[in-house]
Amino acid sequence: MQKLLFLGELSPALKQKLTAALPEWQVSFQQDPSAKAPAQLLAEVTALAGQVSGPFIKAALPEARQLGWIQSWSAGINHLPLPLLAQHGILVSTQSGIHAASISETIVGTMIAMVRQFQTCQRKQAAGVWQQDDRTRLSTIHGKRVGILGAGHIGQETARLLKAFNLETWGLRSHQTATEWIDHVVTPATVDALLRACDFVVNILPATPETRGFMNRERFSLMRPKSRYISVGRGQTTDTAALTEALQSGKLAAAALDVTDPEPLPAGHPLWYLPQVFLMPHQAGLFDQYDNQALTVLIDNARAFAQTGQPAVNLADLKRGY
Amino acid sequence: MQKLLFLGELSPALKQKLTAALPEWQVSFQQDPSAKAPAQLLAEVTALAGQVSGPFIKAALPEARQLGWIQSWSAGINHLPLPLLAQHGILVSTQSGIHAASISETIVGTMIAMVRQFQTCQRKQAAGVWQQDDRTRLSTIHGKRVGILGAGHIGQETARLLKAFNLETWGLRSHQTATEWIDHVVTPATVDALLRACDFVVNILPATPETRGFMNRERFSLMRPKSRYISVGRGQTTDTAALTEALQSGKLAAAALDVTDPEPLPAGHPLWYLPQVFLMPHQAGLFDQYDNQALTVLIDNARAFAQTGQPAVNLADLKRGY
Repeated sequence: MQKLLFLGELSPALKQKLTAALPEWQVSFQQDPSAKAPAQLLAEVTALAGQVSGPFIKAALPEARQLGWIQSWSAGINHLPLPLLAQHGILVSTQSGIHAASISETIVGTMIAMVRQFQTCQRKQAAGVWQQDDRTRLSTIHGKRVGILGAGHIGQETARLLKAFNLETWGLRSHQTATEWIDHVVTPATVDALLRACDFVVNILPATPETRGFMNRERFSLMRPKSRYISVGRGQTTDTAALTEALQSGKLAAAALDVTDPEPLPAGHPLWYLPQVFLMPHQAGLFDQYDNQALTVLIDNARAFAQTGQPAVNLADLKRGY
Repeated sequence: MQKLLFLGELSPALKQKLTAALPEWQVSFQQDPSAKAPAQLLAEVTALAGQVSGPFIKAALPEARQLGWIQSWSAGINHLPLPLLAQHGILVSTQSGIHAASISETIVGTMIAMVRQFQTCQRKQAAGVWQQDDRTRLSTIHGKRVGILGAGHIGQETARLLKAFNLETWGLRSHQTATEWIDHVVTPATVDALLRACDFVVNILPATPETRGFMNRERFSLMRPKSRYISVGRGQTTDTAALTEALQSGKLAAAALDVTDPEPLPAGHPLWYLPQVFLMPHQAGLFDQYDNQALTVLIDNARAFAQTGQPAVNLADLKRGY
């Protein structure tokens, strides 16, 4: 019999749903994801799911000799010891996809908030001031150009939404390939054209060795004067000092950041205070139905794994890192 | 020769563009829209454009015996003495349409800001606090129901955008008629169904005697618990006391208000302070290209008026009031 250990919190209703949906699995729950699991359980477990951390895996691996598959609860897997997992032949599947609506809406929302000066409105409201903004400071996203760094599933969903607003869409992919909803596809070798063309640059790159500090001083310098930057992927893909400079110098008109490097942003960092910066505490991917939808992915993958030895969807490439 | 008096500010470049585009017109400019115009000019003027106010018209009408047409600079005409204009046979055309992108984007942006808790993020940022929101407070607009009170040009454009986000769209029109992008059309007689069904109610009604206080205590009581209200048309169409109660009681989860009654919102009014209220100072229709686009409407209408005695587009019905 397959044995699944779920790590982290899950509502009683969802626990019951999971257990009922997987009669061919014996499912255990451990609320504290960082505690060591009982040796007997570890020795027999074939799959882990939920808040699976790097330290947990490193501690468990010597004993968890039956472990064959991990269902991550997030889209990224850069927090896991990927070479170690590859070496043991352990498969990892992600929650890629379930964040699409939440993240793409957050991107569109922050873009509109920028051109409609929502932050200034809120400050005026807090000060009790009713005063129209200078209309030269108000614009629309309609007809503008957006460049999406990481035009995968979420990037394409974002581009689809922005097409309704009549934006011209550019997208960065690892290889040149026709991509739905993207008017102009670029690669790392040709990304300069995107940076020079676009009014908005949206960074949803995964965290890999290749993408670390991707948006650096040189790339910010290529962006259009008064363009805007939105970062909702992984903080490490942006050089924080370079971003801060680009904002302080007035090169960029505004930034919306759901992720930073380091994270949380250190107390006193200028990005906390710049009025043209909008900070979100890494929550663009969160929504009320998250666990419910993630559970559906887990159930589908567990059924497939029991039958075929492979999860049905979202199998990660441990070498690429996503 | 036709004589046009433009009231209010206009950039030198646009003044020149207007004059050059209308060789068959003699165009005058008066920067102060409330000052009385010279008697000689008033006696000969055939058209007014720009920031034309009620007091200006009332003061001018006895002398402006050649006046045949007014090109308003806004979408609404409730600030003009409509019965008086009708009595004198003076035509009025509006700027209906040019606000569509600006207002519809503002509506979508405030809806996303609500479900993604942008206001809370900004307050946390101001306080230097990096803390994820409880995910039960975060959601998406995807798959929700929106009811648009006033499903005319801007309402349909808003519905078109929201269809990309997979919302079910309801719309209030004065008469039952199939309407593009609207799944369910209701009339004032059947609007209760919209109020009971929708997660978001968007008020873009024009200000007319019939719409005064349209969203009153009874209609707010019909709305879904924890639904959200967006008002971007005219403040008088919402009963301010009823809205305030609906928010204070927790019946509504949030409101985004670009317009209020009275306007500006009086100092000390509770709507300034409720954390679930987002106030904009009546600027949803403003954008950097406003005068440029409005001038195009004026030029097209002036050419048509000179030839046919009628503006080409946006002729208002002075009895309906829009």
